[in-house]
Amino acid sequence: MQLKVDRCSGRPLALQVVEGMREWVALNGAGGGTRLPSIRRLSSELGVSRNVAIEAYEHLIAQGLVRSRPGSGFFVADGASDALLKKGADATSLEEVTSEMWNLFQDDETRLKLGCGWLPSAYREGDELAYAIRQVTRQSRPGIFDYGTPMGMPQLRVLIQERLRLLGISADANQIMLTGGGSYALDLVARLMLKPGDSVFVESPGYYNLFGLLRLHRVNVIGVPRLKDGPDVERMEYLLKHHQPRLFFTNSVFQNPTGTTLGPTVAHRILQLAESHDFHIVEDDIYADFQHDPTIRIAALDGLQRVIYLGSFSKTLSCSLRVGFIAAEPALLKQLVDIKMLTSITASQFAERVVTTMLQNGTYRKLVERVRVKLSGQMAATLNLVKESGWEVFAEPAGGMFIWARHPHVASSNQLVANAQEAGISLSSGHVFYPQGDNASWVRINVAYARDKRAMAFLRQPGT
Amino acid sequence: MQLKVDRCSGRPLALQVVEGMREWVALNGAGGGTRLPSIRRLSSELGVSRNVAIEAYEHLIAQGLVRSRPGSGFFVADGASDALLKKGADATSLEEVTSEMWNLFQDDETRLKLGCGWLPSAYREGDELAYAIRQVTRQSRPGIFDYGTPMGMPQLRVLIQERLRLLGISADANQIMLTGGGSYALDLVARLMLKPGDSVFVESPGYYNLFGLLRLHRVNVIGVPRLKDGPDVERMEYLLKHHQPRLFFTNSVFQNPTGTTLGPTVAHRILQLAESHDFHIVEDDIYADFQHDPTIRIAALDGLQRVIYLGSFSKTLSCSLRVGFIAAEPALLKQLVDIKMLTSITASQFAERVVTTMLQNGTYRKLVERVRVKLSGQMAATLNLVKESGWEVFAEPAGGMFIWARHPHVASSNQLVANAQEAGISLSSGHVFYPQGDNASWVRINVAYARDKRAMAFLRQPGT
Repeated sequence: MQLKVDRCSGRPLALQVVEGMREWVALNGAGGGTRLPSIRRLSSELGVSRNVAIEAYEHLIAQGLVRSRPGSGFFVADGASDALLKKGADATSLEEVTSEMWNLFQDDETRLKLGCGWLPSAYREGDELAYAIRQVTRQSRPGIFDYGTPMGMPQLRVLIQERLRLLGISADANQIMLTGGGSYALDLVARLMLKPGDSVFVESPGYYNLFGLLRLHRVNVIGVPRLKDGPDVERMEYLLKHHQPRLFFTNSVFQNPTGTTLGPTVAHRILQLAESHDFHIVEDDIYADFQHDPTIRIAALDGLQRVIYLGSFSKTLSCSLRVGFIAAEPALLKQLVDIKMLTSITASQFAERVVTTMLQNGTYRKLVERVRVKLSGQMAATLNLVKESGWEVFAEPAGGMFIWARHPHVASSNQLVANAQEAGISLSSGHVFYPQGDNASWVRINVAYARDKRAMAFLRQPGT
Repeated sequence: MQLKVDRCSGRPLALQVVEGMREWVALNGAGGGTRLPSIRRLSSELGVSRNVAIEAYEHLIAQGLVRSRPGSGFFVADGASDALLKKGADATSLEEVTSEMWNLFQDDETRLKLGCGWLPSAYREGDELAYAIRQVTRQSRPGIFDYGTPMGMPQLRVLIQERLRLLGISADANQIMLTGGGSYALDLVARLMLKPGDSVFVESPGYYNLFGLLRLHRVNVIGVPRLKDGPDVERMEYLLKHHQPRLFFTNSVFQNPTGTTLGPTVAHRILQLAESHDFHIVEDDIYADFQHDPTIRIAALDGLQRVIYLGSFSKTLSCSLRVGFIAAEPALLKQLVDIKMLTSITASQFAERVVTTMLQNGTYRKLVERVRVKLSGQMAATLNLVKESGWEVFAEPAGGMFIWARHPHVASSNQLVANAQEAGISLSSGHVFYPQGDNASWVRINVAYARDKRAMAFLRQPGT
């Protein structure tokens, strides 16, 4: 057994041991009765305290994966590896994801959506969008009546091309297509690139809707831990010994749910791994416009060879219009456009024209700047509040909407969700953000909702 | 060999013989060298003239499926059944459909789209849609900014429920979901109900984008001839001896491309077959609002048990907004909503509100009435023109946009397409409307474009 712990990951050591051992059992198909290291040996090999090793074994026994025989040691429980493999397929099941989404949308309107993934109405004070919509109705009769084009409005694709250039990503206009929102873009990529049974790497924790979408495609979803500066490259290298993924999905900037941003070293190594192990990277950069000073994108290093880059106007401008885009290598992009045509003919020309208008007349830039300043203030204030109140923050985000945090007095995120519920607040249980459905103590906090009185009271005393 | 011809189908007898024989060879896997009936025997068994039998064999020989040995008769060519099976999988290939769509959209703007599937800008004189859009921007801040709900706007679902009631279809609001257009609805149904290798029945000729979509799902697409009063029930019964389809896709009203409408007897028999052979019917009724006096819907007979009913506002109101809907049995609908959430979160709340506004204030009714009157005039005038000019019309449509016609002086639709091209007109080659990619002499004429001078000149003399 070759386990490793990372003292800098911020992830509890016992939990790391549990995860490592679960994975070892699953990957090796270790049979019931296989002897496991003693407490003493485990602690010395990993360089952790005996308490950590004991805690890890207690968890594994509680999960029914290990049994202890007093006086003789620890053994793999009967059927453990089958259970783990099954767990791998079922965990964060499609139903779990969709029921989480139903809850989010059907939630009582009076409840504060502190755990949601979008901006609150308090951020929508401007009239720019309404003006742009009215302008399109006056200026463009085809815009309100007719189909768009398969790739989407040429002017908007050129404007996106210019925006990508500012991120260091060079793309021709024939490498950019518009889609009906970011989720639809993810789905198009999955439809083109994946077939049932394929393996796919995702970030853990990561975007749970993506996990559900991938289950829909009947692929094997494998989590790569997300660290403070991006995906855990060493763990990915290790996983690549056992799996041949077709795709790796990642948020480079203000990752969902940890709020962390990719560093250049990690970006370079991830791309190297993609090249040496021949997989594509789906760089889902829908939080890009929340960022003032651009950081590294894998697509910039790669020149859109094996990176498929996704963006969206849903997070900043409007979830209602559904405008997103994909930038990719031309031959691949052409195939994505074909699937788009067959499944929806074209996206909404109207919505595309509205976004174009706002990019052209500069109102989008001003609106985004306003959102950024406001979010940045809420992020700083919320970080202060949660740290003062004893929360552990996974990593302090440099921007965006999300903080990933847990509280030492509340052992499980389910308990946090229940306490929040009592306080009139909705949160999502942390385990849905783990592709393997791990029990988690973490929750995602959307700082845009965190200055509400109910949120502040809850964040000060989440244990009651 | 058990072939049949239908003298009332309007389909040339020789072509029917060719199709029947192709199918017989494919279904029976008849090996190279298998003896086929003589001209004399074929003509006497089928009750057709010798000339028809000779013409059929000539076609089959030209297609490389039959060889003749002078003095000894006709035989299945080597590899014919393999070629046909392969042809079954490849015909109207995905690429053929997508290239047809690329052409349609990338076509020279100056060219008259006489073959397209939507209304021309000349039909868009009203300002109701622009007013409704502006009204939504003034009245609903969430409407322009926020996600919709998984099932779609409740008010619109209730309005659709009332409209379905007028067609004799009773559905609760929890049996109706909104989708981002009609194609997206078709795709959702295919995603839920089909897996690769399944068999699916479609209408032949039928909606070619659907054929491409089904190829994307890697299912076996089998054509049921479309007759004047609906699908060919006897042929369907025959095909059901050899196939177990999961779904049958049909347009009940103003079918694409023939313009024909389902009769009550056929509706009843189709539903009986669906019940006895346990398949679902996808009743794609996107041309419903072109109809003034409702005719039979299979969904009305069935009470939405095994019929999945689809509708859309794209054809009448706007292709740009992308609003469609599905009505189905509640448990099935819930699963469709789940797939919708995973693939696009929600559809555009904005677009849903605009349609709701127009249904509520009566402008949609007036707009549709205006379109109907105009289309009806164009249909009558175009039918007169083409009949006077010697075209054969498959069936005289009672409404809608399409006439399916061919001209005795132009043997192939490819030639018609080429002649039209010369006259500055775009048409689609008839063979894309056949799921098996049959060579066809028919073309689809959209009467809404047919009063243009170029169209009238071409329709008068298509052979030059």
